[in-house]
Amino acid sequence: MLIGKVVGSVVATRKDEKLSNLKLLVVQVHGHDNKPKDQYVVAVDSVQAGVDDMVLFATGSSARQTTQTDARPVDAVIMAVVDSWDLGGANVYEKWA
Amino acid sequence: MLIGKVVGSVVATRKDEKLSNLKLLVVQVHGHDNKPKDQYVVAVDSVQAGVDDMVLFATGSSARQTTQTDARPVDAVIMAVVDSWDLGGANVYEKWA
Amino acid sequence: MLIGKVVGSVVATRKDEKLSNLKLLVVQVHGHDNKPKDQYVVAVDSVQAGVDDMVLFATGSSARQTTQTDARPVDAVIMAVVDSWDLGGANVYEKWA
Amino acid sequence: MLIGKVVGSVVATRKDEKLSNLKLLVVQVHGHDNKPKDQYVVAVDSVQAGVDDMVLFATGSSARQTTQTDARPVDAVIMAVVDSWDLGGANVYEKWA
Amino acid sequence: MLIGKVVGSVVATRKDEKLSNLKLLVVQVHGHDNKPKDQYVVAVDSVQAGVDDMVLFATGSSARQTTQTDARPVDAVIMAVVDSWDLGGANVYEKWA
Repeated sequence: MLIGKVVGSVVATRKDEKLSNLKLLVVQVHGHDNKPKDQYVVAVDSVQAGVDDMVLFATGSSARQTTQTDARPVDAVIMAVVDSWDLGGANVYEKWA
Repeated sequence: MLIGKVVGSVVATRKDEKLSNLKLLVVQVHGHDNKPKDQYVVAVDSVQAGVDDMVLFATGSSARQTTQTDARPVDAVIMAVVDSWDLGGANVYEKWA
Repeated sequence: MLIGKVVGSVVATRKDEKLSNLKLLVVQVHGHDNKPKDQYVVAVDSVQAGVDDMVLFATGSSARQTTQTDARPVDAVIMAVVDSWDLGGANVYEKWA
Repeated sequence: MLIGKVVGSVVATRKDEKLSNLKLLVVQVHGHDNKPKDQYVVAVDSVQAGVDDMVLFATGSSARQTTQTDARPVDAVIMAVVDSWDLGGANVYEKWA
Repeated sequence: MLIGKVVGSVVATRKDEKLSNLKLLVVQVHGHDNKPKDQYVVAVDSVQAGVDDMVLFATGSSARQTTQTDARPVDAVIMAVVDSWDLGGANVYEKWA
């Protein structure tokens, strides 16, 4: 998994029928130092994430292991909202700070 | 998933029998800021996309989760035509503008 | 899928038994502008491709969806010989030109 | 698999129910010369690894082949703590040195 | 698949039980011109490869399609020792030269 920040959302009316009722969010990938990278992914939201939330996302077939994404043609899913992480014992990000 | 623009199509007569009746489109990958990247993929079309459409595509085993691509040797599928997306509340792309 | 050119072949006598009778070709990846990239893959041939053919190849689990590659430890397959492709209506490559 | 060093951990309360009771560690990827790379992954721990341990991690569907990760939406797992490795007969890393 | 050279091995005592009795080799990736790249993978050996052997390795779920790696949490396998390969009719590597 990688850490990213929810920065937007995508609207698509014409789509494969298996995509119905899925929320598609734009996630900007962050480094483990919490610096934004010039890299993004459009991921299905399985945890009611919102804009500015730091999240964990999984890609590939693992993205189809949630109840919402099972057997659907999606290759990225947000499966957690990050509360905090640390590096070498020092806090890097704290949602509730 | 990533966002891309349909820029062309591929014709192939000699191919695995499981590729029959699939439309193969050339998709140029775009950044979430809508700038084109020097990266492309040839993807199966599952939504009757056309040239200049902005689309979402999925890769890997997820590309085989549509009715058209099930059990076929393809690793990329266009599964949605993008109407619009926003970043930080500001519209980045609007199909009908 | 990506487009590539068949540039060579690999000989391997000592190999997993599931690799028997598979032809292994060296494919140089090309851009959608048909410029060769400094990137290659060794792919199983499922369409009797030959040196100098422009081909489409699929990677990952999708590479195991042909009759020849089913359940084998291979992660890339040539599943089509490209006749032609176009970008923005202009022909980029034409096999029979 | 790649070699990495455990450098931190991630806390996430709001998450897919299938993520319950999984420890999420931040792993910095190392080269085979043991130099740290500017690349990381958040991986599920299946071997009770701790901070500063050198570990092996697997990604993609292979990350779901441990008892802890089976059928869960995770795409990276730590499946071994590295004791040592060598290159060309010379020891590169030795846990117990 | 990619071509690589076996340059070392990894020892790991504490590991997932499904990793028992697997030999883990460090493979440096080579280009199709046989130049070493600054890229490596730790792969399971399924063909009794040894240091300095040029090998083919497969990654992802395809790495689990050998008898040794079936259902194990590994994402790379050496499935062939390369005897030779050619580019444009010219021999690039010959094991027995």
